[in-house]
Order: sequence, then structure tokens, then C-alpha cells
Amino acid sequence: MGLLSEEVTQVVIPLAGLVGIGFALLQWYLVSKVRVSAESGAEHNGYRDRLLEEDQEEGLDNLEVTIKCAEIQNAISVGATSFLFTQYRYLGIFMVVFGVIIFLFLGSVKGFSTKSEPCTYNTGNTCKPALANAIFTTIAFFLGALTSVLSGFLGMKIATYANARTTLEARKGVGRAFITAFRSGAVMGFLLAANGLLVLYVSINLFKLYYGDDWEGLYESITGYGLGGSSMALFGRVGGGIYTKAADVGADLVGKVERNIPEDDPRNPAVIADNVGDNVGDIAGMGSDLFGSYAESSCAALFVASISSFGISHDYTAMSYPLIISSMGILVCLITTLFATDLFKIKNISKIAPTLKRQLLISTILMTVGIAIVTYFALPSEFTLFDFGTAKVVKNWHLFLCVAIGLWAGLVIGYITEYYTSNAYSPVQDVADSCRTGAATNVIFGLALGYKSVIIPIFAIAVAIYVSFSLAAMYGIAVAALGMLSTIATGLAIDAYGPIADNAGGIAEMAGMSHLIRERTDALDSAGNTTAAIGKGFAIGSAALVSLALFGAYVSRAGIKTVDVLTPKVFIGLIVGAMLPYWFSAMTMKSVGSAALKMVEEVRRQFNTIPGLIEGTAKPDYATCVKISTDASLKEMIPPGALVILTPLIAGTFFGVETLAGILAGSLVSGVQAGVTEHAKSLGPKGSDPHKAAVIGDTIGDPLKDTSGPSLNILIKLMAVESLVFAPFFATHGGLIFKLL
Amino acid sequence: MGLLSEEVTQVVIPLAGLVGIGFALLQWYLVSKVRVSAESGAEHNGYRDRLLEEDQEEGLDNLEVTIKCAEIQNAISVGATSFLFTQYRYLGIFMVVFGVIIFLFLGSVKGFSTKSEPCTYNTGNTCKPALANAIFTTIAFFLGALTSVLSGFLGMKIATYANARTTLEARKGVGRAFITAFRSGAVMGFLLAANGLLVLYVSINLFKLYYGDDWEGLYESITGYGLGGSSMALFGRVGGGIYTKAADVGADLVGKVERNIPEDDPRNPAVIADNVGDNVGDIAGMGSDLFGSYAESSCAALFVASISSFGISHDYTAMSYPLIISSMGILVCLITTLFATDLFKIKNISKIAPTLKRQLLISTILMTVGIAIVTYFALPSEFTLFDFGTAKVVKNWHLFLCVAIGLWAGLVIGYITEYYTSNAYSPVQDVADSCRTGAATNVIFGLALGYKSVIIPIFAIAVAIYVSFSLAAMYGIAVAALGMLSTIATGLAIDAYGPIADNAGGIAEMAGMSHLIRERTDALDSAGNTTAAIGKGFAIGSAALVSLALFGAYVSRAGIKTVDVLTPKVFIGLIVGAMLPYWFSAMTMKSVGSAALKMVEEVRRQFNTIPGLIEGTAKPDYATCVKISTDASLKEMIPPGALVILTPLIAGTFFGVETLAGILAGSLVSGVQAGVTEHAKSLGPKGSDPHKAAVIGDTIGDPLKDTSGPSLNILIKLMAVESLVFAPFFATHGGLIFKLL
Repeated sequence: MGLLSEEVTQVVIPLAGLVGIGFALLQWYLVSKVRVSAESGAEHNGYRDRLLEEDQEEGLDNLEVTIKCAEIQNAISVGATSFLFTQYRYLGIFMVVFGVIIFLFLGSVKGFSTKSEPCTYNTGNTCKPALANAIFTTIAFFLGALTSVLSGFLGMKIATYANARTTLEARKGVGRAFITAFRSGAVMGFLLAANGLLVLYVSINLFKLYYGDDWEGLYESITGYGLGGSSMALFGRVGGGIYTKAADVGADLVGKVERNIPEDDPRNPAVIADNVGDNVGDIAGMGSDLFGSYAESSCAALFVASISSFGISHDYTAMSYPLIISSMGILVCLITTLFATDLFKIKNISKIAPTLKRQLLISTILMTVGIAIVTYFALPSEFTLFDFGTAKVVKNWHLFLCVAIGLWAGLVIGYITEYYTSNAYSPVQDVADSCRTGAATNVIFGLALGYKSVIIPIFAIAVAIYVSFSLAAMYGIAVAALGMLSTIATGLAIDAYGPIADNAGGIAEMAGMSHLIRERTDALDSAGNTTAAIGKGFAIGSAALVSLALFGAYVSRAGIKTVDVLTPKVFIGLIVGAMLPYWFSAMTMKSVGSAALKMVEEVRRQFNTIPGLIEGTAKPDYATCVKISTDASLKEMIPPGALVILTPLIAGTFFGVETLAGILAGSLVSGVQAGVTEHAKSLGPKGSDPHKAAVIGDTIGDPLKDTSGPSLNILIKLMAVESLVFAPFFATHGGLIFKLL
Repeated sequence: MGLLSEEVTQVVIPLAGLVGIGFALLQWYLVSKVRVSAESGAEHNGYRDRLLEEDQEEGLDNLEVTIKCAEIQNAISVGATSFLFTQYRYLGIFMVVFGVIIFLFLGSVKGFSTKSEPCTYNTGNTCKPALANAIFTTIAFFLGALTSVLSGFLGMKIATYANARTTLEARKGVGRAFITAFRSGAVMGFLLAANGLLVLYVSINLFKLYYGDDWEGLYESITGYGLGGSSMALFGRVGGGIYTKAADVGADLVGKVERNIPEDDPRNPAVIADNVGDNVGDIAGMGSDLFGSYAESSCAALFVASISSFGISHDYTAMSYPLIISSMGILVCLITTLFATDLFKIKNISKIAPTLKRQLLISTILMTVGIAIVTYFALPSEFTLFDFGTAKVVKNWHLFLCVAIGLWAGLVIGYITEYYTSNAYSPVQDVADSCRTGAATNVIFGLALGYKSVIIPIFAIAVAIYVSFSLAAMYGIAVAALGMLSTIATGLAIDAYGPIADNAGGIAEMAGMSHLIRERTDALDSAGNTTAAIGKGFAIGSAALVSLALFGAYVSRAGIKTVDVLTPKVFIGLIVGAMLPYWFSAMTMKSVGSAALKMVEEVRRQFNTIPGLIEGTAKPDYATCVKISTDASLKEMIPPGALVILTPLIAGTFFGVETLAGILAGSLVSGVQAGVTEHAKSLGPKGSDPHKAAVIGDTIGDPLKDTSGPSLNILIKLMAVESLVFAPFFATHGGLIFKLL
């Protein structure tokens, strides 16, 4: 047993969750002090004492601008809320149907028997019936799905609350605007991390009331939480991704290329849809996505622990190691946030990107200490872990190394991503330079750069996998993933900052603010583009580790001892699995392309038929463009979603657990590349000469980096967690085709 | 023992090779009857009796045009020959260095001992020393390399011999031109298939003089033949690919987009380089590539057979089954060729593509019968095959199914490729339609289509793998690959037809021939574009099977019993291996981009500085453009080549045989997708409206489909065959890092 008693653990985890929520609310309160209303113009709002000398105040008394900002903010918020609610109606139906499937499939494993069973791993003891697992897995699925939806929704709410506030603060200086945007990102980060932890903690304790000493069954059922989180994330990412890119591509191609009007120009009919898209895609979608990763890596770690010595000896504190790591993460991120908001000040534009980057480094260093503390107190000095049928003896400092290497691999991926996507370094500058000879060479260079950006992250992931796998088998991988995600609150704050700054720039342009303000918001936005790429790098890196951990848990649960490439069943799975990311990308890109085509035609139509639109004397019809994006994304998210959801079900049922294992491994190793590849594509050349070539290149990169790429990491995670949940069914009833032959 | 005696086998194989060569020479003779010289104008050349009524003779008496064609042909031929000879100097150095490495590495396995060893598989018997295997492997490597170079060179020679002849024949009608181009393709196809077979056959018989009854050592050494063939193919494909695309992209971007002059306009300074590129890239490179596949699948099959019952019981005919299949393939293709050249006539433009497609079908049907005959006569009705340490009992009709399923999977891949790349069907039409909204949507749709085109081929490959793997283990995979390649003579004829027709069109344009002639050559070229894509589909499909067979042979030779994904060593290999195709693509695409940048600048410079160039009164400086392509491709082929050649050596030496196995599996499943994906990208929209968007899309697709894509299949094959050759060294001395830890 470790040094921390069960009672202390039972206090520490919920406390950390509550502290996280409290801190998030405090940040929200601070952001809310910026007033977006008629009387707020020149009001003293508590920040005045921190006004930076370098900044030049501008336009504070312009009441009209403030009102306009409030109007635009409202339009964006209404659009985003209405889209999400429409989407949730579809998702509600999906949740119910899929919940029934989970119940029926898992219930049928033992023919819906209500009799208790001998335990699989904790030999000699009696475990709860499979039917109970079916019921509780379904409940956990619903809880995960609801938490995921809540995470995305709250993120969207704070983002649409913060965007106009950031714009208004930009009048007082870039530092003020930065802090507003960053605090808002932090609200989302902390709410998500804390909610995820709390719901999981409460669920475990409630489920335990029924399960008692049957921890195998308890933590098996909890895996449903990960499945719920991830399946909502899939639709959030895909739907949001199609929405935002259809609007963005449509707005850019007609506005910037054909009509030569600036980005976010209020005359562009697709401009509101574009800004709504940032909030539903990059904010809500990403929130669900990272929540999913967090939930899944926790579930994978808990499941493997439950069939290891922690579970069998009922060591509650050691079992809760993943949750305590996350609790420590919240505290570390809290301290880290103070560095950005209170300890250092942004004095000029060039300091924004380094500040965001420094946040990553600070949180990583502090968290390394945090992991050491948690590991020392929570774990016994030596224990055994389940390793595909054998028991592996592990020391506590081995686990420290596993978590730490995951954490640092995340930092490496973040920094490399920044190097390949920031216009401060030569790779992006080279791509921008290639615009001299036109869009074609630009895209060729951009694609080559995207492919190249994959190399070091893959080596970082490979090293993390090798070390943690060797030290602590699949549990090591799961906690390495948790390590990478332990600073999720900071990561999300940085990530959410991007779209908020992007929106703020859009509002500044639409409200007709001065060139100076627009320059400030552009600088914030530019830094945000790079940090958004960093966020995607993190999402994909953690997805690789999470998927592998889930894969390991699936293999354990399905009772597979080896996944041998030299067997035909596995190999065909591998090659077909590696194809799935391409199939998925083909679907999503075609969806974006079709939706963008419609958008382009609508925008052209409005420019051609509304008199005075291009002169600025008439208003465009924003609502039709919002509707095009909404309809397209809701319709088009279904086929790729079905591909991901149905593949494990079909493969497991008809081809059995080995082929499914091959598919998971294949999609993992292929999807990681495609994902990492594509996030780095088109940033940077924006604004360079010749501009049109750059816009075309940017437009081509957009669906890759914002729709297909980020969705791919959900594809690999979701297929793995779904396989894990359904493993007992596939192991019992699966492989129909081979049984027939 | 089978029904065919060893003596008959010893006659049948070389006879088939000689028949193939004889048939190739006959075709060459028929092509040579078209005179490209001053007196040839209206000469009766033996075809007159077949003149089709629909065709309108035109310009037969125009002496000037004929002379001009001869001149252009000469310029292309000189350029291509000089490039290849320069390239061969580099390759010569590489061959010597790599030959020494092979000798040293393999010789060191038993410390350069000259003592005989107990056999590994044929237990109880004595085999030749490892040093002998080192020497003979090195010799086989040189033979393979030389045959590969010869295949590419002869292909280039006949192609540059045939291009102007095709143009001149186009004056007499599209059918005449088609037959000339197709016959020339057949020369290449038959020469390559027959040479590959004969050199292999002779080598085996010569090696046997030394090895005697030690068939293990004999066929181990023969694997060097595959390595030699494939390593030359790598440089041929990469170098040729960079050459052709630098010229093509440069010529198109300035000529078609900026200056609005047609394709192949003689005023374009890059036009000769572009036409040279077709011959060195699409002809010589592809010839080496497919020869490599053929040599490797034969070697993989022979190696596995040698450690199975065929080898141990010294059943020469059964051992030679792969060679007899190839012999039958030559005969089947000979009959198939007669269908195109003598049985059916091309009466109008719309018949070209269906005729080429029908050739594939005819050869597949005939070959199925051929396989049945060969299998019945050459194999005993039951025998055992080596299956990773166990012996698998197999019946002869199982092997028939393996070969046949490979053959038919090839046909499916060919037809699907045609569907996705021909402008007769909706996929390409949709992409063309998307040009309405500009280059960006065009590229998005094109990429999506490319990704989508991968789905069915992957399923076809998966089914072929599953069936052949289940029926006859790795030997099944190897003969399935051979089955797909058995009709290589027809496949190559169709494939080589494409660049010849492309060149013919170029010559027509440059020689200033009439619109009618140009229309005919355009139709030939358009059909050729699709067939070239079919050829690439074949190359990649066969590469997948070949690589898997080589992978199996490697695993057997390295003494690995399972390649378990659930071990860290294998998994990191898998994920890093899956990254390699991206790394490789990044390198080659960047190379094409850089070379194209230089080309664009040179072409712009000439248009700007040479007075009268655009008016057609001055001649451009073709030679400088040829030099840019030559220098770029020779310089840029080295880094990607090094990546592929060094990866197995480094991985095997430092990380050992399991990690290398993971790398091979990872690069195989990932490379196949990327390869198949990209070949289908940009064809079709050419010529549609708005033209510029289409040209940009086409230009972006070009390096993907003609440089990165086709090279990727060599990447996966070459790494596998290299691992196979070096397996004894890695198994003995490899894995240094893990030994140290």
C-alpha cells in the first residue's frame, strides 16, 4: 500500500475538481468585468491600474462601436447556440439508439442471465452478472456523452462571451486584449478538466455502491464513460469541422480572391457563418475531443489497473492513481495560469507567442514535480501489472517515468508543431516564398512541409511508447497518455485562446474599428493560429497514446495473447485499418468541398443580386449562409460517423477479435501520421505576396487541418474504446464469417 | 513429383524467354518500317492494305514536317540517353559500394569462415559456407542491377524510337498511330519479361554448378537478384520522377497559365525537357520498377520454396514453378498482343481506351487457363510448405487459387483505377466540375477522390492476401504476386503506350502539324493517361503482395516466429515504419518543388529576355532547361534514396530483427495507401473550364502521382528485399542498442 490513505484520496480528488471549477468561475468573473453594453464605453473596469504605457488608448468613447460589437457578438452567439442545439437533437437520437445497442450486445454475452459469475482475473471470487455490466456500461456511456456535450457547450458559451470583450479590450492595448482572451480560454480548460474528473469520480463511487468488491466489473463498466465522451466528440469535430470550413472556404474564395475585400469584411455574406464556425468547430468540437481523450485514457488505465494487483488487492489509492494525477494536473495548471495573467505582462505584439509557449514549458516542469509527489505518495513501492496474461513486476518510479515521458513527449510535439507552423521560422517562410511561382508550387511545398512535420513527433511518440511499454506494459502507455493530458487545462486555455482571438479580429473588422485595433487583434490571431496548431499536435499525440492504451485494454479484455502480423486474419485487419483514415478523409473532404461549393455560389449570388452590397450600402443575408453551413454539416457528419461507429461492430461481429485487433493497430499507425501531417499545412503564407496564391493554398490546407486531420484522432480513439467496450461480445459471439467457413 | 520432368522444365523456361525476345524483335521490326527520314513521306510501308476508310490521310507529302519530326525525336533521344548515362555513372558508384557492403555484412555472419555449415532447414545435411553465400549474393545483386538498368534503357530507346513514328502514322489515321505506339510498348514489355526470366534462369543454373545440392544456399544467394533490381529501380523512379515533373510543372505553370500557350508548344523552353522526362521517368523508371517487382516476387517464392518440401526433396520442376508461371505468362501475353494488333481494328478515337482495357481482360482470362495447366503439370498433388517454423500441407489446386486470385485482384485494381482516373466516368467529371469555383475546390475534390480511390483496391488486396496466406502461407502470397505480374508483358505494353502517345502528341505540336493530327494524338494521349494510371495501380498492387512475400521470407530467414504487435520493439517499428512513406514523400515533393521553382524562373527568364520568343521568331534555349532537370534530379535523388537504403541497415543493426519486422509491416500498410491514393489525383480536368484552375490542380497532382506515389511502392519493396538479404547478419549481429541496455 502507498502512503496516502483511502480516506485522504477520497477527499483530495473531489477537492481538486472543486478548486478547478472555482478557479474557472473566478476567471469568468474577471472576464465579465469587461462590459459589452451601451454604457461601458469609458468605464473604469478594474484593469485600469495595469494599463501598459506602450499601448495607446483608442476609441474608448465610441459608443456606436460598442453597440455594434454587442450586436455582432449576439449574432455569433445565437448562431452557434442554435447550431449546437440542432446538432444535439441528432446526437440525442444517436445516444439512445447506441445505448440500446450497448445494452443488448453486452447483455447477450451471457444470455441476459442475472446470475453472478466467477471473476475472470480475480480467480476464486464471484463477480456481478454480465447483465449488470451491460446496464452500468450503458449508464456510464450516457454520463460520458452528457459530460462531453456539456464540455463543448460551455466552451462555446464562454468563447462567444469573450470574443467581443477581447475586441473592446484591444482598444486599451494588446496586453489587455490578450489577458481577456487567455482568461476565457482558461475558463474552458479548467471547467473541462474539473468536470471530467468530478463526473468520473462520482460515477465510480456510485457504481461501487452496487459492485462492492467486484472491481473488475466496476471498472469494466466505467469504460462506457470513455465511449460516450468519444462518440459525442466525433460528431462534434466532424460536424463542427464541416461547418467552419464550408463557411471559411466559401467566404475566402469569393471575398478575398474574387472580390478583393479583406477577411471578415461585413459585406461578405458568409462572415457570420465563418465566425460561428470557429466557435462550434474549433471550440466546442475541440473541447469534446480533448475531454474524450482524457476520459478514455483514464478508463484505459483504470481498467488495466483493476485486473492488476491494485484491483485484486483492493488498493483504492493506487487504483485511483490516474485520477490523482489529473487532480495534481489541475493544481499545476492553476499555478501556471497565474504566470500568464499576473506574473508577466505582455508589453508588445512580439511577446504573445513566446508567452503562450512559455506556459507549456512552465506547466510541464511543474507537473514533473507533481507527478513525482503523487507517485511517491499514492503508489506502493512495488506491485504487479497485468501484461497480456502474465504479471509484470513494476516499481513506483517506473510509473513516474512513464507519466513523465508522456508529459515531455507532449511538450516536444507542441514545440515541433510550433516550429513547423509559426511564420517566425524558416519552414513556413519557405512555403510563403514559394507563392512567388503560384498556388501550385505553394501547395506542393505546403504538402511536403506537412509530411515532414510528422517525423519528429512520431519519433517522440515512439520513444514514449517504447519506454512506457517496456517499463509497465499497457498500464504504462495509459498513464503516459494521462501524463500528456495532465496539463490539459493549460493546453486547452492556449488552444481556446486561438479561436477567441480569431473571432475578436472578425468583430473588430465588422464593427469598423480602426487600423490600429485591427493590427492588435491580428497579432493576437496570428499567435492563436500557431497555438491552435499546437493544440492539434497535442490532441493527436495524446490520441496515439490513448488509442494504444485502449488497444491494449481491448486485447486484454478480449482474451487475445498475441496480435501476430504473420497471421492472415491480423494482417488483413492491419491493411484495411490503415486504409480507414483515407476513406474517412475522403468523406469529410468531399463534404467540405460540396458545402463550400454551395457557399461559394450563395455568396456570389448575393454579391451579384443585392444592389449596393459591395459598396457597403446594403446588408448581406447572413442567415442563408448560416443555414447552408448548418444543413451541410448535419447531413454530412452522418456517413463518416457511421464509418467509424460501424467498423468495429462489423469487424468484431463478422471477422472476430484478431482481425479487429489488426484494424485497430492499422488505423492507429496510419491515422496518427495523417493527423499529424495535416495540421501543419497552410498556416503562414496568409498575407504574403502574391496573395491569391496564398489564399488558394490556405483554402486547400483548411479542410485538411481543421476537418479531416483533427477528426482522425477521434477515429482511432473511438474505434479502440468501442472495441474495448464490446470486447466480451466479440470474444463470445464474434467472427461469424470464419466460423462459417 | 509433378508430371513435368526436370529435363522438360529445363527446356521450357529458356524457350519461353527466347520466344519473348523474338516476338519483341518482330514488333520492333514492324515499328521500324515506319520511316522517319527525308525520303519516307508517301512511301508504301506494308501497312497500306490495312488503311481504315474512316481515316482521312493528311499531309503525307509534307517533307518538311517529316524532317522536323526526325529532328525533335533526335533531340529527345539524345537528351534522354545523356541523362540516363549520367545517372548510370552515379548508380555505378552506388552499386560498387553497396556490393562491398553486402559482401562484408554477409561474409561477417560466420566471421568469413570458409568451412561448410550444417544446413538450417534441410537438417542433417551440410551446406556451403556463409562466405560463399556472401559472394554469390553480391554477384546476384550485380546481375539484378544490370538487368534492371538494361530494362529501363531498352524501354527508353524503343520509346524514343517510336514517338515520332507514332506522330507520322497519325497522318494516316488514329488506328495506324495506335498500332505503332502499342507495338512499341509491346517491345518493351516482352523484352523486359523475357530478359528478367532468362537472366534469372541462367543465374540459377550457373550458381547450381557450385552449390550442387545445397538449394538453401543457392536460393538464398539468388535473393540478391531482387535487391539489385529494386535498388536500381528506386533511383530510376525517383530520379526520373523528379526530372519529368520539374520539367512538366515548370513548362505548364509558365506556358499554360502565364503565357496562355498550348501544351508542348515549341516556344516553351521547357518543352524538350518535358518530353525527355516522359521517357526517363515514365518509361525507364517504370521499366526498372516492374522488373524489380518481378525479380523480387520470383526470389521470394523461390526462397520460401527452397526451405519447403520442394527444396528439401530437390524437386526441380516444382521449385521452378514461379519461373514456369512467368514462362506461361509470356506466351499468354503474346497471344493477347495479337488481339490488339491483328484481330481487332481501332476505327475511331472512342475505341482506344476500350481496346486497351480489353487487353487486360483477355490476358487475365487466358492466363487463368495457363495457370491451371502449369499447376497441373508442374506440381505434385500434395506437398508441404514452410510456415514460420511449422510445415503446412498444401494441395496443388490451392496454389492455383493463390496465383489466380493475385491475377484477378490485379484486374480489379486496374479496372477500379481506370474508373477513378478516366474522364468517361463521374468521379473525374465531378472533379472537373469543381473547377467552376476555382483551383482550391478542385484540389480539395481531387484529393478526396484520390483518397477514395484507395478503398476498393485495398479490399481487393486484402482478399487476395487472406486467401493466399490461408491456403499456402507466405509461398501463397509470393505466387499471388507472381500471378498479378504474370501478364507483365501486356501490362507494360499498355503502360509504355501512354508516354509514347504523350510524346507523339508533343512532337506533332512542335512540328506544327495540323489540328486534325493533333486531335488524333490527343485522343491517343488521353487514353494513355488513364492506362498509365492503370499501370501505376498494378505496380502498387503487386508491390503490396511482393513486399508481404518478401517480409514473410525475411521473417523466416531471420528466424522470427511471431511479429507480435503487443511487444514494444515491434510496435515502435510499426509506427515509425508507417511514417517513412510520409518522410520520403516530403523529400521527393520538396525536390520537385525546388526544381520546378528553378525551372519556372528559367522559363520566365527566357520569355522575358529572348526577343521574338513568344512571337515564334526566335528559338528558346532548350538545353538549359534540360540541364536544370538533369542536375536537380541527380542531386535530389540521393537523400530519399539514402533514407530507403539506410533504414533497414540502421534498424536491423541497432534495433534488431523484430523492430525491423515492425518497420517493414508499418511501411507496407501505410505506403500502399499513400501510393494507391495518389496515382488517381489530377487527371481529367485538363482542358476543362476554367482552364487555369484545372492546370493548377493538375500541377499539384503531378508530383504526387508521378514522383512520390510510384516511388513509394519501391520504398516498401526495397526495404523488404534488403532486409531479406541482410537477415542473417541482423539475426547474428543486430540489435546493438537493446543488447547494450
